[in-house]
Amino acid sequence: MEIAVTRVGQAGTRPKDEDLGFGTAFTDHMFVMDYSTDKGWHDPRIEPFAPVTLSPAAMVFHYGQAIFEGLKAYKTPEKKVQLFRARDNFDRLNRSARGLCIPEVDIDFVMDALKQLLKLEKDWIPETLGTSLYIRPFIIATDPFLGVRSSFTFKFFIILCSVGAYYAGGLAPVKIWVSKDHVRAVPGGVGEFKTAGNYAASLNAGEIAKKQGYAQVLWLDALERKYVEEVGAMNIFFVIDDELVTPNLTGSILPGITRFSVIDLAKKWGMPVSERKISMDEVLDAHASGRLKEVFGSGTAAVISPVGEICYGDRVLHIGDGNPGPVAMKFYQALTSIQYGTAKDTENWIEPVV
Amino acid sequence: MEIAVTRVGQAGTRPKDEDLGFGTAFTDHMFVMDYSTDKGWHDPRIEPFAPVTLSPAAMVFHYGQAIFEGLKAYKTPEKKVQLFRARDNFDRLNRSARGLCIPEVDIDFVMDALKQLLKLEKDWIPETLGTSLYIRPFIIATDPFLGVRSSFTFKFFIILCSVGAYYAGGLAPVKIWVSKDHVRAVPGGVGEFKTAGNYAASLNAGEIAKKQGYAQVLWLDALERKYVEEVGAMNIFFVIDDELVTPNLTGSILPGITRFSVIDLAKKWGMPVSERKISMDEVLDAHASGRLKEVFGSGTAAVISPVGEICYGDRVLHIGDGNPGPVAMKFYQALTSIQYGTAKDTENWIEPVV
Repeated sequence: MEIAVTRVGQAGTRPKDEDLGFGTAFTDHMFVMDYSTDKGWHDPRIEPFAPVTLSPAAMVFHYGQAIFEGLKAYKTPEKKVQLFRARDNFDRLNRSARGLCIPEVDIDFVMDALKQLLKLEKDWIPETLGTSLYIRPFIIATDPFLGVRSSFTFKFFIILCSVGAYYAGGLAPVKIWVSKDHVRAVPGGVGEFKTAGNYAASLNAGEIAKKQGYAQVLWLDALERKYVEEVGAMNIFFVIDDELVTPNLTGSILPGITRFSVIDLAKKWGMPVSERKISMDEVLDAHASGRLKEVFGSGTAAVISPVGEICYGDRVLHIGDGNPGPVAMKFYQALTSIQYGTAKDTENWIEPVV
Repeated sequence: MEIAVTRVGQAGTRPKDEDLGFGTAFTDHMFVMDYSTDKGWHDPRIEPFAPVTLSPAAMVFHYGQAIFEGLKAYKTPEKKVQLFRARDNFDRLNRSARGLCIPEVDIDFVMDALKQLLKLEKDWIPETLGTSLYIRPFIIATDPFLGVRSSFTFKFFIILCSVGAYYAGGLAPVKIWVSKDHVRAVPGGVGEFKTAGNYAASLNAGEIAKKQGYAQVLWLDALERKYVEEVGAMNIFFVIDDELVTPNLTGSILPGITRFSVIDLAKKWGMPVSERKISMDEVLDAHASGRLKEVFGSGTAAVISPVGEICYGDRVLHIGDGNPGPVAMKFYQALTSIQYGTAKDTENWIEPVV
């Protein structure tokens, strides 16, 4: 398929690197294509970033048939533009699509479309360490129909925004709050897919956490409410003695691409790493006996985010000395060095764009 | 607040009663109002039913912060327009709002807005038994922002469509399929709220059911996968011996307004009725011993829908003789007589409009 390109008349202005927040500085153009049962995915186009017009009966508004991905493009010191494990994101998009009855996309085609879009928008990619271009592919159901079934029409978008740190404090350790009353996802549900409703289901607990001064919710499993699952926008890692421990993927946990990258690097470095069930009781015990050395989250938005405090009922666990721990820092530096092209891509994770 | 009214230039045409399906014949006008943190709900207006324009970054597309309601307006033989338990729907909308961090609406105000809209659209309300005007109030998150938090801006809509039977077969018994692998909702989750993501999470199992010739999915509880919860678009009732049994509201079941109405009528009629856990084993046993007399669903869309067949793994239960059972028929007739104004509203369920 040929991608039609319509350019904006006047290019916008990227905020200064030091002014960048997260999720608001959208670029000039976006990629869009449409799906219908008879035509499949069709009419791919790059056009000015502009409002979308949908029937108020569009199924996405009522039944939440929507999936998304999040990935980043980075600029190297040589001003080259590169992607980090982008194909893995589109693989996961297609897994989410199957889980939500949404038609899959052709990964080679959307990779090409993304690269074409990035070439057009390369001036929107900031260069300072910690800044990048956040890429949001997403698919929404558009049939104007009231009644529960899968839609026959969809729209696929890729929108871009220049971003700084996801957490206002940057790499400073975040405080997280364990939800005992709210449950995010359940085996047999859609927790392992990146679908809109999972995030809506997390908002109430998120607000409770925020009111108490915590940045994110740490979710427990739905069945026993004992085992750690994930943090709102990140997977979670514990350093107990010298072992790295992270919850295994049970079907209700998002299979994070940064999570896989951390595990891969740990194995390469010969660091003991275990994907297994880990209960809050085990975390409390390890903390009490001084064996819990570090806790950190992993995710595309923040890359690595050290956790300095966990609140679990009336227990408050302080982890570390207020600074990022050495293990978290080692992963952060290894991952960002590859992402920003200051270290060799020994893992074949980088996809060059231009 | 004053409601501004903009009328369409040319009114549309309502399909003939016999041609009405469900969820496609939208009326000429809709009600809309906006929310912002500083202004609260503001700018209420009735305007032509028309596409809505939103940023592709609008949070509803990404994080599913969206809730809705479904209710109906009926035309009586005297051409009067009336609503059935409409305040209960707006009460539930506000409960869903609290569950999804969405600002509540003023129920008196939206009831007035709905009535004003219905007066304008009264020619869209069909008169044949089984047809009606379906009313869909809904709220969506509209901040153009990527990042998980509650939105600061929302839109509230009421859209209307003339409808016939929800199931193509009308009152003919439907076949339902018990999902063993997929789970709709979990205690601590958002299953009791009418939020978009719950329906997205049901699509995959719905497709599997449909491929096997079943109209809807019967969901089991998330924790033990033993106890009956609800059907895709309905609550479920079993007639065992002479008792009416329906699952109790555990937090993961939608508290249906038709469900409450059935229970209220049963109590009034002196029919034994029990809201309690009911396992599929109990249903199988009752069927095997001939004690399972009827199964039916209740919901706004279909009112009462007899169930003629339940598929549970390799077991297929046939219920009744292919015709609606007497208990289901009794509830259907009692409810529809009140709704269509052919019987006295002894329960104070009717809200007259015009």
